[in-house]
Amino acid sequence: MELVLVAIGLGLLAIIYGIFTSRQVLGAGAGNEKMQEIAGAIQEGARAYLNRQYTTIAIVGVVVCALVFFLLNWIAAAGFLIGAVLSGAAGYIGMNISVKANVRTAAAAQSGLQQGLTLAFRAGAITGLLVAGLALLAIAGFFYFLAGALGFEANSREVVDGLVGLAFGASLISIFARLGGGIFTKAADVGADLVGKVEAGIPEDDPRNPAVIADNVGDNVGDCAGMAADLFETYVVTVGATMVLTALLLGGTLGALLLPMMSLPLLIGGACIVTSIIGTYFVKLGSKQNIMGAMYKGFIVTAVLSIPAIYAVMTWALGDMNALIGANVVSETATVALGDTLVTEGAAEVVGGFTGMDLFWCSMLGLVITGLIIWITEYYTGTEYRPVRSIAKASETGHGTNVIQGLAISLEATALPTLVIVAGIIIADLLAGLVGIAYAATAMLALAGMVVALDAYGPVTDNAGGIAEMAGLDDSVREKTDALDAVGNTTKAVTKGYAIGSAGLAALVLFAAYTTDLTEFFPGVTVDFSLKNPFVIVGLLLGALLPYLFGAMGMTAVGRAAGDVVKDVREQFAADKGIMEGTSRPNYARTVDLVTRAAIKEMIVPSLLPVLAPVVVYFVITLIAGQANGFAALGALLLGVIVGGLFVALSMTAGGGAWDNAKKYIEDGNHGGKGSDAHHAAVTGDTVGDPYKDTAGPAVNPMIKITNIVALLLLAALAAGAAG
Amino acid sequence: MELVLVAIGLGLLAIIYGIFTSRQVLGAGAGNEKMQEIAGAIQEGARAYLNRQYTTIAIVGVVVCALVFFLLNWIAAAGFLIGAVLSGAAGYIGMNISVKANVRTAAAAQSGLQQGLTLAFRAGAITGLLVAGLALLAIAGFFYFLAGALGFEANSREVVDGLVGLAFGASLISIFARLGGGIFTKAADVGADLVGKVEAGIPEDDPRNPAVIADNVGDNVGDCAGMAADLFETYVVTVGATMVLTALLLGGTLGALLLPMMSLPLLIGGACIVTSIIGTYFVKLGSKQNIMGAMYKGFIVTAVLSIPAIYAVMTWALGDMNALIGANVVSETATVALGDTLVTEGAAEVVGGFTGMDLFWCSMLGLVITGLIIWITEYYTGTEYRPVRSIAKASETGHGTNVIQGLAISLEATALPTLVIVAGIIIADLLAGLVGIAYAATAMLALAGMVVALDAYGPVTDNAGGIAEMAGLDDSVREKTDALDAVGNTTKAVTKGYAIGSAGLAALVLFAAYTTDLTEFFPGVTVDFSLKNPFVIVGLLLGALLPYLFGAMGMTAVGRAAGDVVKDVREQFAADKGIMEGTSRPNYARTVDLVTRAAIKEMIVPSLLPVLAPVVVYFVITLIAGQANGFAALGALLLGVIVGGLFVALSMTAGGGAWDNAKKYIEDGNHGGKGSDAHHAAVTGDTVGDPYKDTAGPAVNPMIKITNIVALLLLAALAAGAAG
Repeated sequence: MELVLVAIGLGLLAIIYGIFTSRQVLGAGAGNEKMQEIAGAIQEGARAYLNRQYTTIAIVGVVVCALVFFLLNWIAAAGFLIGAVLSGAAGYIGMNISVKANVRTAAAAQSGLQQGLTLAFRAGAITGLLVAGLALLAIAGFFYFLAGALGFEANSREVVDGLVGLAFGASLISIFARLGGGIFTKAADVGADLVGKVEAGIPEDDPRNPAVIADNVGDNVGDCAGMAADLFETYVVTVGATMVLTALLLGGTLGALLLPMMSLPLLIGGACIVTSIIGTYFVKLGSKQNIMGAMYKGFIVTAVLSIPAIYAVMTWALGDMNALIGANVVSETATVALGDTLVTEGAAEVVGGFTGMDLFWCSMLGLVITGLIIWITEYYTGTEYRPVRSIAKASETGHGTNVIQGLAISLEATALPTLVIVAGIIIADLLAGLVGIAYAATAMLALAGMVVALDAYGPVTDNAGGIAEMAGLDDSVREKTDALDAVGNTTKAVTKGYAIGSAGLAALVLFAAYTTDLTEFFPGVTVDFSLKNPFVIVGLLLGALLPYLFGAMGMTAVGRAAGDVVKDVREQFAADKGIMEGTSRPNYARTVDLVTRAAIKEMIVPSLLPVLAPVVVYFVITLIAGQANGFAALGALLLGVIVGGLFVALSMTAGGGAWDNAKKYIEDGNHGGKGSDAHHAAVTGDTVGDPYKDTAGPAVNPMIKITNIVALLLLAALAAGAAG
Repeated sequence: MELVLVAIGLGLLAIIYGIFTSRQVLGAGAGNEKMQEIAGAIQEGARAYLNRQYTTIAIVGVVVCALVFFLLNWIAAAGFLIGAVLSGAAGYIGMNISVKANVRTAAAAQSGLQQGLTLAFRAGAITGLLVAGLALLAIAGFFYFLAGALGFEANSREVVDGLVGLAFGASLISIFARLGGGIFTKAADVGADLVGKVEAGIPEDDPRNPAVIADNVGDNVGDCAGMAADLFETYVVTVGATMVLTALLLGGTLGALLLPMMSLPLLIGGACIVTSIIGTYFVKLGSKQNIMGAMYKGFIVTAVLSIPAIYAVMTWALGDMNALIGANVVSETATVALGDTLVTEGAAEVVGGFTGMDLFWCSMLGLVITGLIIWITEYYTGTEYRPVRSIAKASETGHGTNVIQGLAISLEATALPTLVIVAGIIIADLLAGLVGIAYAATAMLALAGMVVALDAYGPVTDNAGGIAEMAGLDDSVREKTDALDAVGNTTKAVTKGYAIGSAGLAALVLFAAYTTDLTEFFPGVTVDFSLKNPFVIVGLLLGALLPYLFGAMGMTAVGRAAGDVVKDVREQFAADKGIMEGTSRPNYARTVDLVTRAAIKEMIVPSLLPVLAPVVVYFVITLIAGQANGFAALGALLLGVIVGGLFVALSMTAGGGAWDNAKKYIEDGNHGGKGSDAHHAAVTGDTVGDPYKDTAGPAVNPMIKITNIVALLLLAALAAGAAG
């Protein structure tokens, strides 16, 4: 248990870093009165939205928690509660830092680019480390409570149920937060742009636009709070799934290594919290004033330091790194190819597992995958490379060709990440089977502190720019915040690619947990997961449909809510001519309130889709073709949703980022610059990309996880029902 | 063999109908000299393009044919040659009818809507029945030659190889024709629109636009010739796969029923040729002058008459419709649930097959699926329903919201067809296992004559409108051709949904052929197709990637070629001011030639993607993880490409049609009508939808089939290599 306690300690370290750094951030100057007034309005709007969002989610949450309690047990319900509350907390705290850091970043940018960068990045780092720290604390603490305080066996059903419940709580909150926040931010953004930039011909962030505060609120509730909840969920599910898989798949074979093996993912997470904290201090501009370069410095330091750190905790936990661990029956040929011992047990061949070194290499693989995905995402969304430039160039011939090229890039952008993930699956499987895949995913997520830091910095600089504009600060300040913001577009895309990439690996782990659970709960039912079974095809097709349907709902919701914003702003302009003349103040609160109501209303139905789909598919197919086919179709649905969702999410997030930066590239004076026809076309592309990259695309990640976790819970509930 | 001879006779009937009806069409008045001059330019351009396209394809074809000959045998090579030549012929003849019917339709529309409709529809019906007739003749004739003249057993390897070779030839030509034609038509269309409507502010089909002839040529080479080759391929592959599956799966168990069972798909095709011919005579305007209604009348007559026709040929071929046929080991639980006899044979349970009535109901299911897909497609692309109207309404707030709503609709439009296909798979499987699925697909394709007729009518009316405009005919003529054309948008979308829907079913049949072949060729290799095998996941992911990559290439190709058109037209305008003034004639041929070269160049690489991908995946995975995993990954790739491709194709074709008709709906005077801001936004959406619906989307259908057929050929080649 001391290993778990160390992990808890390292989780606390992240919290302490957060408290310490937020004091630094809040200690910085908050600018003049006008700036503080604007920032105050944004803070107020963001808090009002989150309060309402979390109240609504709480109602759904209480119902679901009660269901978990009655259908399963109090441990799963307690896990659900902890996951839900901490996921909400991660988002809430992140948003609170963000809305205070924005005005301070604007103030700091008056002194220089480095000052602005430092402040914004520190704000991001607080959110990043809080997400990683809270997530680690949640799993490690709950595991300690169950396996230590209550004395359950580490691989007992109680512990597994608790961890799955925890993951479910985190995921359910996260999908609401991602989708609600995503709809809010893009409805406000698209609405403000349409009625401001396009109709009234006033610039972005012009204080005369009644939707301008809502737009800035959106950055905080969507890109910050929503994203934080999402990554909290990804962390909890990935690390939790690795532990659950260890318990289910290897449990009996581990002996004295059971507890160390189950604690190891937690320790890897803890070790990388330390390296992430160190990395944050290396984010500094070099002589070339390259902002992306400064970010990379921080990331590379973290990644490189993580290599010895992971090796150290592994050696500590496992002792002999070359001893064989567990047995792995999953991927026979592959492991045999590496020359591991081969044991024949009855009819089936059982292959003697993997070594600590194998797991270490799988973790390294996770780090490499993270690096490659960051690099690929930067290629597809950075202004220096072919994809963004091709969209910018296509803008010269109009709106249509801009969108066509953007769609082409978004389709193309799925290829390299998929190949990286496929290579990752193959290599990890060859090294250590499914457990290897789980370790690769865990190592990816262990870097979450740093990756989220890079991302959460984005909304701060976006807001800082808005405040600079509205407060009428010098143009040079806006230039600096714009430069910081352009990098934010790429880092935001990076986090999404990273989250969905890790989801690809985590989903395989969850699927393995599903099949293992199935054998344990229903030993009498032989489920045919072969592609030759038509119900497997049915499941795959239905699973792949989910992200499409979900994406359609998200996009429609943004379109509808943005339309409401346009109408509201038009009404305000019509009712008071003074607004456009700059003599009267628009009613910002009214627009914020309108978007709030719209976002809350629109988030419910799509969020319930992945919760209900597995249940409906299982029962319908069972009714038609028996329970074995019901289980087969449900299992295939879980993989279908990842096979379909991976591409939808990758294409949407990369495409959206590329459109956004193509506009920025033109605004930098290329292809005619601001106000040119190419610029108008690029604004259209940016608008289209908005709900792609910030609403529908990123929400696919929690959606995939929810579908999987609901399936696991369904199995447990069915088993409990059959037993009771 | 008499059953096959009857099928051949019915195929010839379709050809006779074609010759007879084309005399009627060609006998109609061809309009005034000016009209004939324009039509002549279109004919010349279309022929020049097709000659060059088929010359290029012939070079690839000869190489591939030689490969098939050396790696397999002369029978497969002969099949390839027949499939390739007849696929090309179907496209070529269809195009020839189309380019002659266009001007005659314009002339006939001067007399009235019914006259225009009759002429255009008859032209479409010629293409439709030629496609179905030639396809039936190809399979039935080749089958007769092999099993009758040469005396091979109907289920012998020679016959199977021959049919697979035939399908490969048809598919390979079809993907080139679909993609080359698709790139040509949309590059010309988008380019002409951008430089004409958007830049120069002249209307569509204005004779001053140098790209206008290329645009009209495009309708013929893409929407007519490309589509005809595609549907020829779909027909050959589906009916051929049903025969191959019957031979491989049931071969040994059929006894005297072997030949009748293998001939039955041909007879169903033949019977529906008769009902399609009858149906064409019912396409007449009612009192409401509803064009879509007239089309439906024809379709419904065909579908309803097909019920007794299919029943009749089944009874004739099988005799007792209630006798058990074959044995079906594929879907045990399902078939047992229906109470069929259960035979235990060794360790495995073999379920005594299905009856003739089961197959009849599966065929009826195919007709119902076709009807439902038509109905769903009309809902998503017709101007009277929510989807198109929502896009039209979103156009009011600008280009961005139009595109967002269009994308949302395109995502949503995948849901209902997927559910229909899933329900079809389940029901057919319950009735008669995989053979049932094959019969549902065959019955769908049996209606191809009628469905292609509805589609091929589109480019004729589109051209007729162009000719009316360029020849300066009365506005009332243009109104009539426009009304005919609007329906064409929906019927074109219908055919694509139908083709991809049937591809979903056919792919399952091809996958079954793959697994059965695998067992026969490599009895010693145990392949694990379970979803638990990581290499199955790898295959699924790589398969799902293919349509994305393919779509990206197609979209980029259109964007690039359209850009070339824009430059060419700008140069022509700049070099000769008289063009815009209407005093000098633009150099149409130069633009046609430019698009021709671009389309031919751009079609090669994407077309080779599905040919090479299966080979590369098999060899790479075999190298890494052994042959069993290589086969597993390849099999999963086949299903991955359909799981991914179904959604990409459905969303693109439905979305594109919806965008197009949203523009038409606005042009009809809604939301501000022509020239309004909403109209400009809708033109953008239409431009975006163009390569979606006419280039990338429809080409996914042959792509799926090619991947599957290449895998089958790879198995045969590997087996031949191992044996030799």
